[in-house]
Amino acid sequence: MKKMCGQQSMLFEKKIYICSSAAIVGKKEGQGPLKKYYDQIVEDPFFAMDTWEAAESKFVEESTLLAVEKAGLCKEQIRYAFAGDLLGQLIAASFGIKKLEIPFVGLYGACSNIGLALTMGSVTVESGCGDYVLCAASSHFGSAEKQFRFPLEYGNQRQQSSTWTVTGCGAFVLSGEKTKENKQVIIKGATIGKIIDFQIRDAQNMGAAMAPAAASVIDQALKDFQMKPEDFDHIVTGDLGIIGKELLCSLLSQNNVNIEKQHLDCGMMIFDREKQDTHSGGSGCACSAVVLASYLIKKIEQGEWKRILFVPTGAMFSPTSFNEGQPVPGIAHAVWLEREE
Amino acid sequence: MKKMCGQQSMLFEKKIYICSSAAIVGKKEGQGPLKKYYDQIVEDPFFAMDTWEAAESKFVEESTLLAVEKAGLCKEQIRYAFAGDLLGQLIAASFGIKKLEIPFVGLYGACSNIGLALTMGSVTVESGCGDYVLCAASSHFGSAEKQFRFPLEYGNQRQQSSTWTVTGCGAFVLSGEKTKENKQVIIKGATIGKIIDFQIRDAQNMGAAMAPAAASVIDQALKDFQMKPEDFDHIVTGDLGIIGKELLCSLLSQNNVNIEKQHLDCGMMIFDREKQDTHSGGSGCACSAVVLASYLIKKIEQGEWKRILFVPTGAMFSPTSFNEGQPVPGIAHAVWLEREE
Repeated sequence: MKKMCGQQSMLFEKKIYICSSAAIVGKKEGQGPLKKYYDQIVEDPFFAMDTWEAAESKFVEESTLLAVEKAGLCKEQIRYAFAGDLLGQLIAASFGIKKLEIPFVGLYGACSNIGLALTMGSVTVESGCGDYVLCAASSHFGSAEKQFRFPLEYGNQRQQSSTWTVTGCGAFVLSGEKTKENKQVIIKGATIGKIIDFQIRDAQNMGAAMAPAAASVIDQALKDFQMKPEDFDHIVTGDLGIIGKELLCSLLSQNNVNIEKQHLDCGMMIFDREKQDTHSGGSGCACSAVVLASYLIKKIEQGEWKRILFVPTGAMFSPTSFNEGQPVPGIAHAVWLEREE
Repeated sequence: MKKMCGQQSMLFEKKIYICSSAAIVGKKEGQGPLKKYYDQIVEDPFFAMDTWEAAESKFVEESTLLAVEKAGLCKEQIRYAFAGDLLGQLIAASFGIKKLEIPFVGLYGACSNIGLALTMGSVTVESGCGDYVLCAASSHFGSAEKQFRFPLEYGNQRQQSSTWTVTGCGAFVLSGEKTKENKQVIIKGATIGKIIDFQIRDAQNMGAAMAPAAASVIDQALKDFQMKPEDFDHIVTGDLGIIGKELLCSLLSQNNVNIEKQHLDCGMMIFDREKQDTHSGGSGCACSAVVLASYLIKKIEQGEWKRILFVPTGAMFSPTSFNEGQPVPGIAHAVWLEREE
C-alpha cells in the first residue's frame, strides 16, 4: 500500500514507535474506573496555581515532562512539540510547553486534538524532519466550563445529554527508532477528518454534533486501509458519550458498516456513570488523550489487543460562533495503532 | 545537509513548489501601498455576511478556493488543508474550510500561523503523505478588535505602539511536483520557533512581545542553515511594526548578527503610515500571509529576488490569560523561500 492511502489516509513506511506515554489527571478522574492506570492523580483542582487556566498549563507541563522522562530522554532531545487544548488562543498548551523550551506547533481540532498531534508528529518523523517528537492534549473542567458554559458558582443544572470535561493531560513521545524504554506500540497510519456539519445547535449535546464526523472518518479509514471493523480489536472514539455512541452506530449502519462489537468510547470508560453523576460521559481533549496514554496503550502493550483504530472526536465552535447562531460542526481523526510483533 | 538540520530546522529533499497563491483583502488594505498586487479587494467589511466572524470565514473560503483555482486544480484534488486564525477555537478557519470539504488540520501560532501552515504543509508533502496541500491564514480587523481589544463602537483611542489588524486571507497550494501553473518558487526549508517570554505585559505593544521570538528564530535559522544574513535578499518578519523592528535589530546585534540591510516587515509594508493612520503598522495572521501571497512571491517569481527568509511572528496570549495577569510571550517561525533555477 502507498503512503498516500485512499482518499484521506496515510500509511507510514517507517515504524513510528510510541516511546512513552504519560497521563496525569484530576481527582474525579482518579476516582473513576481507570484509576489504577494513571501516572498521577492530582487532588487539588488548581494544581497549586491561581487560576483554572494556569492549572491546566501545569497539567501540560508536568505530563509532557513525565513522558519525556519515561522515554529515557531529556527535553533538549525532543525536536518538536505538537500540542493543543480547548481554550481560546491555546493558552493551556502554549503556557505549559513554554517552560520546556521545545519548538512548538500549536494544533486545534477541539477534543480531537490528540489525534491531530499524533498524526502531525508521525508525519514529521516519517518525513525525516524530526527524530523525537512530543504530542500532547489537555483540558480542565474548570477552564472549560468558564470558557464554554456557565460560571461554576452559578451552579447550573446539567442536562442528561451533557458531558463532563475531563481534567488532565495525556502526553506521548514518538520516534522512528526503537528505544530501550519502548512500548512496542506503533502508529501505522492515520486518517485526517473533514469538518462535518449536521446543523446541531444544542451546545449541551456535543455527542450528536461529533457522531457524524466520527462516522465519516471511520467509514473512510476502513475504506482507505481496506480493513473491516473486525480487523481491529477495538474502534475507540473520543468523547461521544451515550447519545453520540448510538448515533454513530446508527449512522454507520446506514452505510452497512457495523462496529457495535468493536466500539468503545473513552468518554463512557473514564467515569462511572452511576456513581459519578457525569450524565452522558466524559469529554474534552484530555478525555481521549489520557485514556489512550494509560488504559488503551497498556492493553496493546500487554498483547491483550493487537490493533485498534483510535478516533478522537471534536466539536468545532466557540462561544462567539454559538451566540451568533452558527451550528456546531464536528471533526474526528483516526489513528491506527498496533502492537509491534 | 541533512533534513534534520541543526537544532530546530528542516531542509526538504524534495522541491516543495508553491503552485499558487491568493490574497483577498479588505478596503483599507486595498488603499495601501501594495494594492496592485492583491487578487481581490473587498469593499464591504462584512463581505455580505452578518457578523465579523462570518465575514472572516468568507475571506478564508474565497481565497482558498481562488488559490486552488489558480493552481489549475479542483478542490477534490487537495489532500489536506492547513489553516488557522486568531479567533478562539479557530472559528474563522474551520467555518471557512468547512465548505471546501477538505480534511482539515487546524493550526495556531497567533499571527505566525501562515509560517506553521507552510511548514506543516511542506513536511506532509516531503513525507509523501500528501500531494497537493492547501495552506492559509486569516484575520479581520472587526473580529480581532472584538476578541482582543475594545468594541468598535466604543471608539477607544489607539496608542502609537498599537498595530492595525489586517483584514483578509492569504492562501497557498503546495506540491512536490511541478505543475503547469507553477510559480517557480520553492520552499527549501523551515525553522520551527520556541515560545519566548520577555514578560511583556502591554497588550497594545505586540511588537515588543514578538521581537525576541523573531530574533531567536532568525538567529537559529541562520546557524542551522549555515547562512549569513547577506545570503538572503531579504529577511521578512510578519508584523513587528516600527517598535518591534528596532527591538529585533538591537537584539540580534547583541549576538553579532546584523540584518538591518536585509530586514523588511510586512506590517510596515502593508499600510502607508502617514496617510492611513495605522500607528506602528499592520498586524494579524493575514498581514504576513497576504503580503507573502501577493508582493513577496511576485518579487521572487519575477527573479528580482533569489531567496528570502520569511519569518511570521505571533503573540501568544488570550483575553483570559491577559486579564489574569499573565505576560504575552511571542513565537515566530522561519520559512526559507527561493526561486527555482
